[in-house]
Amino acid sequence: MFGPVLGIDPGVSRCGYGVVGLGRHGELQPMACGVIRTSPDRPLPERLATLAHELEILVDEIRPVALAVERVLFQANVRTAMSVGQASGLALVVAARRDIPVANYSPNEVKLAVVGHGGADKAQVQEMVMRVLHLKELPRPPDAADALALAVCHLGGVSLRAAVGHDERIEAAAGGAPSPRLDRAIAAAVAREQAQ
Amino acid sequence: MFGPVLGIDPGVSRCGYGVVGLGRHGELQPMACGVIRTSPDRPLPERLATLAHELEILVDEIRPVALAVERVLFQANVRTAMSVGQASGLALVVAARRDIPVANYSPNEVKLAVVGHGGADKAQVQEMVMRVLHLKELPRPPDAADALALAVCHLGGVSLRAAVGHDERIEAAAGGAPSPRLDRAIAAAVAREQAQ
Repeated sequence: MFGPVLGIDPGVSRCGYGVVGLGRHGELQPMACGVIRTSPDRPLPERLATLAHELEILVDEIRPVALAVERVLFQANVRTAMSVGQASGLALVVAARRDIPVANYSPNEVKLAVVGHGGADKAQVQEMVMRVLHLKELPRPPDAADALALAVCHLGGVSLRAAVGHDERIEAAAGGAPSPRLDRAIAAAVAREQAQ
Repeated sequence: MFGPVLGIDPGVSRCGYGVVGLGRHGELQPMACGVIRTSPDRPLPERLATLAHELEILVDEIRPVALAVERVLFQANVRTAMSVGQASGLALVVAARRDIPVANYSPNEVKLAVVGHGGADKAQVQEMVMRVLHLKELPRPPDAADALALAVCHLGGVSLRAAVGHDERIEAAAGGAPSPRLDRAIAAAVAREQAQ
């Protein structure tokens, strides 16, 4: 198996994570997903310390080959950007201290890779993540689905770059692209769905 | 001596710090200031890990009784907010892991406390920080002066709250206010200046 890749949808109140590997025939293998929550009733420094601690435990347990972290959009407001910055900064330090490379993807890149168009809504992302990962039900909450989608997006890019012989670390930093292998996996999932 | 208080002007490229204590007669005692820099040529996760490491060393060396951290303004742009969020989040975790309380002050609160009006420019803050701390020259760069100003602002609030018997930790979380003691220190500094 290649991976696992740990997708992170950063936030202080809810930080989604999703773990996906790639089998030897290029099949996506979902391994775990969930949300790290911190209580809005606690002081911010304590919440961030809790988040950092949980991220460390997660990364040490999963030992991912890469982190795929959501990049904040410029359309976001300052309060969101500040909060996403705080959460993502902690994830990046956890990764750097373990020499794990980090790739960033915008929500649009993820939607393009997973759903096929950048304008997809959250429900479509959940639905398509369920299909391509052959899950029995929708991944919930949406933060966990988004994190799985980030990992899928990164693995799509990995497959593509492996096919054309690019260096993973350099390319990952520049952002991923949807892969033919991922497209095939999505097409197969849709075909299965329609055959039922 | 009360303190020291560690002021932090958070940023990924340049993170200013300033250390100020309060003598037994309420006199401000500057102890150190400077800037932690990370190279824009290095990957962001590595830069954040470097910053986190330097902040840990600084805090363990100084053993401050409180951190005074600049709060990002809503007028700031998203890129700035993201970067300030990343740097401040790391500082907050370093503090929380050592049970050091953190207070946040907006740039306007700091200017009001140190210069006397919220609309002061960077040069005026540098000038007034030099006066109230009896420094022989302007604290440089501006990030270091801003960090000293944050510590001075916090100590001003501490004096005021001590005078009226408020609990420091609760009040610190709500933000500080300029103190009569600080006002006297500033007035004395201005008088000394004019007498020369």
